[in-house]
Amino acid sequence: MNNSNIIKPRKLPGFMELLPSKQVIFDEMMEKIKKVYKMFAFSPLDTPVLELSEILLAKSGGDIDKELYAFNKGDTNVCMRYDLTVPLARFVAMNSEFIDFPFKRYQIGKVYRGEKAQKGRFREFYQCDADIIGIDTLPLIADAECLNIADKIFDTLGLKIVNHISNRNILFGYCEDLGLADKTIDILIILDKLGKIGKDNALEELGNLNIDSEKANKLIQIASLCGSFDDILKILEPLSTNETFVKGINDLKEIFSYLTAYKLPKENYCLDIGIIRGHNYYTGTVFEVNLVGHPEFGAVCAGGRYDNLATYYTDKKMPGVGLSIGLTRLFDLLDKNEMLPPLEKRCVDLQIIPLGNTILHCVELQSYFQNNGIICEINYDNRSFKGKMKEANKRNLPFVIVVGENEVSSLKYSFKDMFKGTQETLSKEECLQILKNN
Amino acid sequence: MNNSNIIKPRKLPGFMELLPSKQVIFDEMMEKIKKVYKMFAFSPLDTPVLELSEILLAKSGGDIDKELYAFNKGDTNVCMRYDLTVPLARFVAMNSEFIDFPFKRYQIGKVYRGEKAQKGRFREFYQCDADIIGIDTLPLIADAECLNIADKIFDTLGLKIVNHISNRNILFGYCEDLGLADKTIDILIILDKLGKIGKDNALEELGNLNIDSEKANKLIQIASLCGSFDDILKILEPLSTNETFVKGINDLKEIFSYLTAYKLPKENYCLDIGIIRGHNYYTGTVFEVNLVGHPEFGAVCAGGRYDNLATYYTDKKMPGVGLSIGLTRLFDLLDKNEMLPPLEKRCVDLQIIPLGNTILHCVELQSYFQNNGIICEINYDNRSFKGKMKEANKRNLPFVIVVGENEVSSLKYSFKDMFKGTQETLSKEECLQILKNN
Repeated sequence: MNNSNIIKPRKLPGFMELLPSKQVIFDEMMEKIKKVYKMFAFSPLDTPVLELSEILLAKSGGDIDKELYAFNKGDTNVCMRYDLTVPLARFVAMNSEFIDFPFKRYQIGKVYRGEKAQKGRFREFYQCDADIIGIDTLPLIADAECLNIADKIFDTLGLKIVNHISNRNILFGYCEDLGLADKTIDILIILDKLGKIGKDNALEELGNLNIDSEKANKLIQIASLCGSFDDILKILEPLSTNETFVKGINDLKEIFSYLTAYKLPKENYCLDIGIIRGHNYYTGTVFEVNLVGHPEFGAVCAGGRYDNLATYYTDKKMPGVGLSIGLTRLFDLLDKNEMLPPLEKRCVDLQIIPLGNTILHCVELQSYFQNNGIICEINYDNRSFKGKMKEANKRNLPFVIVVGENEVSSLKYSFKDMFKGTQETLSKEECLQILKNN
Repeated sequence: MNNSNIIKPRKLPGFMELLPSKQVIFDEMMEKIKKVYKMFAFSPLDTPVLELSEILLAKSGGDIDKELYAFNKGDTNVCMRYDLTVPLARFVAMNSEFIDFPFKRYQIGKVYRGEKAQKGRFREFYQCDADIIGIDTLPLIADAECLNIADKIFDTLGLKIVNHISNRNILFGYCEDLGLADKTIDILIILDKLGKIGKDNALEELGNLNIDSEKANKLIQIASLCGSFDDILKILEPLSTNETFVKGINDLKEIFSYLTAYKLPKENYCLDIGIIRGHNYYTGTVFEVNLVGHPEFGAVCAGGRYDNLATYYTDKKMPGVGLSIGLTRLFDLLDKNEMLPPLEKRCVDLQIIPLGNTILHCVELQSYFQNNGIICEINYDNRSFKGKMKEANKRNLPFVIVVGENEVSSLKYSFKDMFKGTQETLSKEECLQILKNN
């Protein structure tokens, strides 16, 4: 094939693709998240990337948002999943007789949103979700468990967080109490963006809803409450005796008792009435996790309680609570800010470099080390010995064995500690001992 | 929402979706495969599911096969990947200056083929690929490494295999020697299906190519050779002195020397000249792995050597060799034949059942056990105690702790060994000791 037939290789914009040196860190982060989910005995789920559009878009009556990757295949309109929650709803509705409730499942997978490509936005990204689904009822301990899991995940990732927790019943009840029940949705939309637009703009927008300034100020005040559970609950309690409001207070108190029993560090979470979460389906607990010192990252994990997960697919009442981490975006932010966690597991423990015609002996050595749990490769590239050593340095390989013909007859090998810059002549058993201790 | 708005939940046909009890086995198999790839120091790669159609289909000049999931998004024609090899080619061509060669990468991901739904065929399935890509040259040890890796994978999966290995140069050279060089492709297509159509039909089809019956018989004879490397090489060697043929022989001999040095069990592989692999791009080593006793499964792993991976995207010569396991299909076959490997790791070590108002104490206990590496859940469903115990039995949970109010004050718990059917009253430290030893 000649030059003129070559197509310049490129990938679609908005799709993350990492070089191996970064991919190993990404994978390690994903493994750590998975390990926490497993430690809480969550089951894995792996739903298809493609779903029938009428199923996936049941909520919208089948209307396809421009953001979505939907298309016809034969006579069937299909859509790439845009989250892992709707497929979960479809799954539990389809399989409710085959699964145990409460159903605790995690799913880590790619989701697709064809939004306008822009900095920090991805069209394909990993969500790492964990949800607990009950039948008819689900106790509040499940909400606390999700908060605990979120805390454990960021702890294991080595990232300091504050989890901003609220309960939507506080604002639902407060609006009711102010005689604004019919405007609740619109009020929440405004309060949700309070941090972005500021107090004055929020007051103006509330005024546009014909809410008088006294009430508007009260709404802004309550939505601005953020602090320790102890402090904020004390401020909240006298504000209203509305039933919904009081339920919100009591639920928050119960959650707080669990978080205390879990011994979650007090500085890792707060009660923040301004946390609303746009999604209409949240009905109780809501939370957003921020990285300490990086408010500009926005929420790196979020979730909450929804009273009825699978309402479009079944008559059964299935309350749930869950959390979601957008790993692709989180990784990208950490990478750009040089905050990626260091790699914990080595990708190579030992490289064997054959000198002369010793490759068969190297092959035996490789098997010996691998059978003893050592990640071991043979360097069979066509560089010079000097070039190979330079490459080993560049790749930060910790140990190298050089196997020339003398080594094959003596069964003693030049074992190089690349970090210390030392070299010893050792038997394979002696090499193994050092490798196991390092 | 009333009944009439409910949409019957269903998934697309041809898309595998497992219940958690099966998914954990699937995941464990995937983990084992990944672990072998890592043990050989392969790097992970994770390319997007969607690619530009003109890139993905460069080989076909952009023609979209009916099988493919291709569609327009805005002005862009995109396609869901149908394998992991073309994206690898695109990746190495794009990033050749940032990666080390030989580039050893594994990728485990879903690929998409919208073929007619039929038994045992999936439209979305996992491929578990490992490839080694060189620049300009790549020694034969790389081919042997792939064969070794395939062997290790099925060993770790507990599946007995025979890897049928060949080198396409044997047939290339033999056709040349018979004066049939110009008909090689057509001959290979017929010999490739010899097992399916039988000798007589193959003879007839070769006759249709105007190949005389003596040559046709010779072709069938050589393609029927299958046995130990020692035996088959002895039969092959006198058959031709054609240069390509001899190169095939020598390469097979070298491969055999590596496999011997790797100490691969002799019964795990054979030399089978009938292995051709349809793909035109294989240029040397080819192999197909069969499960012992299950020829009806067909190849459960396959691969080979290609001289030029990224020819559509770059001028650089990039020879490669790789293997691919279709895990979804393999899992499905094993499942249907009740051959799934047993789960090795427990999904739950311990369940804590609160009796009365002891949930806060249970939460503390859960953290204690989790911090000590025990997978631990609290049973907070709303069943009766009897119902909970029945459920624990059904789910095969190994250990259960019952925490009533007496237990909270005495700090001694009813610790049940569900398999033995025994019960002891123990401190949490004593429980932990038993859990760690089991």
